[in-house]
Amino acid sequence: MPDEMSRPLIRDRGDGGGCRHLEASMSEPGAPVIGILGTGDFSRSLARRLVTCGYQVVVGSRTPKRAVALFPEEAEVTSQMEAASQADLVFVAVFPEHHTTLVNLKPALAGKTLVDVSNGLRVNKDGPSNAEQLADLFPESSIVKGFNTISAWTLQVGPRDGSKQVLLCSDNHAAKSLVMQVCRRMGFIPVDMGLLSSSLEIENIPLYLFPSWRIPTLCTLSLFIFFYLYNFTRDVLQPYVTAGKSVFYKIPIEIVNVTLPSVALVMLALVYLPGLFAALLQLRWGTKYNRFPDWLDRWLIRRKQFGLCSFFCAVLHAIYSLCLPLRKSFRYKLINTALKQVKNHQEMLWDDEEVWRMELYLSVGIMALGLLSLLAVASLPSVANTVNWREFTFIQSTLGYCALYMATFHTALYGWSRAFNPDQYPFFMPPTFLLVIVPPITVLLGRLALFVPCVAQRLRQIRRGWERSRHIRFTVPDNYCHNGLEDVSNV
Amino acid sequence: MPDEMSRPLIRDRGDGGGCRHLEASMSEPGAPVIGILGTGDFSRSLARRLVTCGYQVVVGSRTPKRAVALFPEEAEVTSQMEAASQADLVFVAVFPEHHTTLVNLKPALAGKTLVDVSNGLRVNKDGPSNAEQLADLFPESSIVKGFNTISAWTLQVGPRDGSKQVLLCSDNHAAKSLVMQVCRRMGFIPVDMGLLSSSLEIENIPLYLFPSWRIPTLCTLSLFIFFYLYNFTRDVLQPYVTAGKSVFYKIPIEIVNVTLPSVALVMLALVYLPGLFAALLQLRWGTKYNRFPDWLDRWLIRRKQFGLCSFFCAVLHAIYSLCLPLRKSFRYKLINTALKQVKNHQEMLWDDEEVWRMELYLSVGIMALGLLSLLAVASLPSVANTVNWREFTFIQSTLGYCALYMATFHTALYGWSRAFNPDQYPFFMPPTFLLVIVPPITVLLGRLALFVPCVAQRLRQIRRGWERSRHIRFTVPDNYCHNGLEDVSNV
Amino acid sequence: MPDEMSRPLIRDRGDGGGCRHLEASMSEPGAPVIGILGTGDFSRSLARRLVTCGYQVVVGSRTPKRAVALFPEEAEVTSQMEAASQADLVFVAVFPEHHTTLVNLKPALAGKTLVDVSNGLRVNKDGPSNAEQLADLFPESSIVKGFNTISAWTLQVGPRDGSKQVLLCSDNHAAKSLVMQVCRRMGFIPVDMGLLSSSLEIENIPLYLFPSWRIPTLCTLSLFIFFYLYNFTRDVLQPYVTAGKSVFYKIPIEIVNVTLPSVALVMLALVYLPGLFAALLQLRWGTKYNRFPDWLDRWLIRRKQFGLCSFFCAVLHAIYSLCLPLRKSFRYKLINTALKQVKNHQEMLWDDEEVWRMELYLSVGIMALGLLSLLAVASLPSVANTVNWREFTFIQSTLGYCALYMATFHTALYGWSRAFNPDQYPFFMPPTFLLVIVPPITVLLGRLALFVPCVAQRLRQIRRGWERSRHIRFTVPDNYCHNGLEDVSNV
Repeated sequence: MPDEMSRPLIRDRGDGGGCRHLEASMSEPGAPVIGILGTGDFSRSLARRLVTCGYQVVVGSRTPKRAVALFPEEAEVTSQMEAASQADLVFVAVFPEHHTTLVNLKPALAGKTLVDVSNGLRVNKDGPSNAEQLADLFPESSIVKGFNTISAWTLQVGPRDGSKQVLLCSDNHAAKSLVMQVCRRMGFIPVDMGLLSSSLEIENIPLYLFPSWRIPTLCTLSLFIFFYLYNFTRDVLQPYVTAGKSVFYKIPIEIVNVTLPSVALVMLALVYLPGLFAALLQLRWGTKYNRFPDWLDRWLIRRKQFGLCSFFCAVLHAIYSLCLPLRKSFRYKLINTALKQVKNHQEMLWDDEEVWRMELYLSVGIMALGLLSLLAVASLPSVANTVNWREFTFIQSTLGYCALYMATFHTALYGWSRAFNPDQYPFFMPPTFLLVIVPPITVLLGRLALFVPCVAQRLRQIRRGWERSRHIRFTVPDNYCHNGLEDVSNV
Repeated sequence: MPDEMSRPLIRDRGDGGGCRHLEASMSEPGAPVIGILGTGDFSRSLARRLVTCGYQVVVGSRTPKRAVALFPEEAEVTSQMEAASQADLVFVAVFPEHHTTLVNLKPALAGKTLVDVSNGLRVNKDGPSNAEQLADLFPESSIVKGFNTISAWTLQVGPRDGSKQVLLCSDNHAAKSLVMQVCRRMGFIPVDMGLLSSSLEIENIPLYLFPSWRIPTLCTLSLFIFFYLYNFTRDVLQPYVTAGKSVFYKIPIEIVNVTLPSVALVMLALVYLPGLFAALLQLRWGTKYNRFPDWLDRWLIRRKQFGLCSFFCAVLHAIYSLCLPLRKSFRYKLINTALKQVKNHQEMLWDDEEVWRMELYLSVGIMALGLLSLLAVASLPSVANTVNWREFTFIQSTLGYCALYMATFHTALYGWSRAFNPDQYPFFMPPTFLLVIVPPITVLLGRLALFVPCVAQRLRQIRRGWERSRHIRFTVPDNYCHNGLEDVSNV
Repeated sequence: MPDEMSRPLIRDRGDGGGCRHLEASMSEPGAPVIGILGTGDFSRSLARRLVTCGYQVVVGSRTPKRAVALFPEEAEVTSQMEAASQADLVFVAVFPEHHTTLVNLKPALAGKTLVDVSNGLRVNKDGPSNAEQLADLFPESSIVKGFNTISAWTLQVGPRDGSKQVLLCSDNHAAKSLVMQVCRRMGFIPVDMGLLSSSLEIENIPLYLFPSWRIPTLCTLSLFIFFYLYNFTRDVLQPYVTAGKSVFYKIPIEIVNVTLPSVALVMLALVYLPGLFAALLQLRWGTKYNRFPDWLDRWLIRRKQFGLCSFFCAVLHAIYSLCLPLRKSFRYKLINTALKQVKNHQEMLWDDEEVWRMELYLSVGIMALGLLSLLAVASLPSVANTVNWREFTFIQSTLGYCALYMATFHTALYGWSRAFNPDQYPFFMPPTFLLVIVPPITVLLGRLALFVPCVAQRLRQIRRGWERSRHIRFTVPDNYCHNGLEDVSNV
């Protein structure tokens, strides 16, 4: 450590706390002096945060005189070489393509811990990572990769609800521990990601764009397009072609509002289908120790996203439906019906079956939506973190199946009378609801089949570790109640 | 520690990082070698996570050759005895009923830390806990209870938003500290729950099913059933019995939609009632240092759940109401009214009082719902964590009372004209809204009474520690602004 | 440390775990004995929590005999002097105005760590803080400020989702580290806020009432009042004054429902306006290293709050709109239109343009609301913590602009035909939507201008650190992908 006196005096905060400040920083011999190379936004936010957390900070800049105005008063801004010499721990906040410009600091940085906070410009699958290149440049320093997943903004304001993680990795355990400690004092949660070979993964994290949502979103979109075209052909094109009836005004709302529930219901069925597949495979294999095929694994992992897509469509469907009576077309039709009644000298209009059917399917639909809302709220990270596994399973499996049953019932009630009306098969296209109801009915029947006592019993055995090939119970199988992964396939 | 060379070589990750990997694991003498007994899902997820966090992992299996395929490459899979001998810290991930099969490992495990991750099958109130039984089996090892509240799934993917807690307890402080450190490096937040006698409590945690929701949910359901039957008798049965008028179609929607707001309003009043009781008791006792009766304590603690139940009913009520004009019955009635007007040769239909009343109560109702939504959002854990106590009180108390007032006003506006119409008392049953409005009116009046200056002044004194029995102010009372528990009874 | 034997025996928990308990507490020589001065709610909750976490707790009370009933059995309740002597670490949970009553404990507290948990009664901008005053009273003790941001309630039940932070500061590093350790074992996340001079700031935190919401809320309210009065004059007063037409029934719903979307749209435009200003300033200055003017900085920081206010208004607007067909006035008007048609012997009512326009603007409006909902969900702290910066930018910028575009389109479609109708300019007041659409159109055009290749290119250069004044690229600028603060001004 360089001698204390040669440093420019730390300026005080103005309110007279300065002298206490200085005394104190003298009396903290254990805290490392932290250097920052680079003067960008990240450097500035990092410096501000470190100073707030009581660290002594030295910033290394190529143009310290210009840069000094950008940094908090308590931080010392000096040349890169001086910063490198004074600091015990150095954050390298420089573009990775400029890492080579730092080689002249090599002697000053030898034996010290360097934190590489850089990110790539695009996902890098092949390596080497920026951190590994830095490690090659500075073989005598200990490189820690980290903080690249934290934005300058979060650094500056601090993690308000304190659940922000900082992923770290390094080949040097002591260096990693030191950075973890700094990290913790800043109020972040450090996560040890192991050796520096993990740095590639850590560098790629900030470059992903919702990777787990890609397939569910594509699935939702494809279903939407398919059902939209189907409904358009059936409800708009067909009347126009066969009867010359122009109902193109249905395009923005009515067709969308038949398409959305279709997508929602199919997506909801797709949430529960992979669990059935998993159960079938386990029953067929007679063991749970075989790996599922990759597509099934990925599907099982994406179920939450499928469910949320389904919920989003269901909510939009509800809003669209509630909008229906707002529309001019609705009002015109109502008035025209009244006019027709007057013309025909009929006095009362009432169709008890129609009334009942609609009251029922609306009611069931609202209940399904209510249940789905509970599921959606329970999948918020902060709520999911407060429930235990049993509660989670209750919500996602029991309530989820209830919602699926209700939604299916809602659809069946809606479509029932139409299914048996030959007029509803124009161009030989069955009503949409008949197509849509197939997946959920399959899932519900499949689930029922798993309730058959002998099947249920066998499945329970398998999930406790029983294997058909051995016909004996595995003596030290697994922890019964740790239903995490096994129940990921819980139907 | 067994010698390094006898171990099977750790396989590298394929991308050439292997040699760096091996060097590094050599250079981390401080990190404990972690053993895992058991090969179930939990063991596998734990092994994967530990390996990712840079730990050396040895898995003990009865059939290591079979099990090796299930574990990550970096983990060593060997016999139970060898794993027990090599490891410094051993996770016991075996069914508790098979703990006895491990006794032959006793010498190898002596002096080591054992982490019991097991759960019970059902809530165990009497003890001894699994961990205490394990401690009796291995008196020479240090037992730490923990990780049983974490699912294999969370272990594997890691706590994405980093706020997942791991509850730990042990009689051996050093052992507990070691496990806490491992826990922290995995990115979890360890919580010290004290001595091993807490293990029973920790083992029961994953077996509870929303214990704090039981009473509020039961309360909601009972109120729903009561009001549903009341409304059914009044609005459906009575017209049928007395006039033969069949309005059974009202069962699925209209009756539900009169019941839901009743439940919502009564539940909302029940949120604020216990605070009034608490204030009354404190005024009567002249001190805040007496304990409240148990039922009141439990009620005070469940207020959030009561409020959320109320909100859920209110939202459903809103959706049901918005659905009304969608229904065929609504349309038929509208057309029939038009037909009647035509028949009677009337030209304009307009009742200014009816129009005004409805515009007003809809508007007030929407505002009440808006306020309740803010309350609901503020009770999400991640939002609640970012507000301070003053903000929390402002939302839950000030905005909450506003919402209660609005909801009461909404109900009064809706029912006003009916209250004074003798036709509205069939079977001597008053209109529902008259029953429903009693609790909120009581609460609002009670709250007003506490605003009377002398009462308010006395209550404030009591809450600052004043006691009537001493007639002097308690010199070292409590921290004025730490309004946690005292203001739990804040009305 | 006082001798172990003179202490009253710690009572056991009743279930026989007592003896193990006692042994264990003997065997934890490293854990500090924790003293608590004061017997209020906070003291009691703190004692309970510390006891649960395995600490030995001594409570100092002026009336230990009376106070003993209020504390958990495992805590020792004794005189203040004895507690001060026995403890290694002392929580001072006494009103700050009574701190002076503790001076006689000075010798007993010398060399020990005192934690000041007190809060002020009102925001104190000038200092000295309570903690600094305590430090002046006890110059030989090490004062740590902290725990004042935690309520007694949170202390007692524990931070369920584990993301609750405890802000700490002290001039003594060792004392602070000790408290941080205690804090961590209780399951909280300690945040080092530096030296004791930060205590004023920490003491003020619990006294703020949504400081970041003040300006956005005021802005929303002002806009609401302005547009409400404008619409009232235009739609209610004008018909009454000029034609004697009384439409005062529009006051509670219809006028509100024209006002709300106006506020929502203007507020949404105000979310994106400051980003444009920032880009313009950067382009003009030719550098990003100048500080923005203060008003712009504050505006940029409040964008989330502006957005959520906009969302709240948009949701209310949606509910109000959906309520329209519920109203008696809607029904009367519908029936009256039918009657008029009958009277005029017209048979069909249909205006294709009107139908199309309404279907379109409803549809676009629903999509805008759907997008805004995604934005709102993404701004929940627990969700925001799980997305990376690229994902955050995608949601808040890309989806946000889509929502703004949709909302603008929705408004334009709604108002289009009215803009060119001279009847719509009573009192020379243009239709509201014409006023309202100006800010979003400006923002959208401004954003388009920034897409012009040469402008976009220059802006990108500037944000990578290029400066016009130097005409060379800054060699060690900042970390390209750390787009926190720089992209706070990202449009």
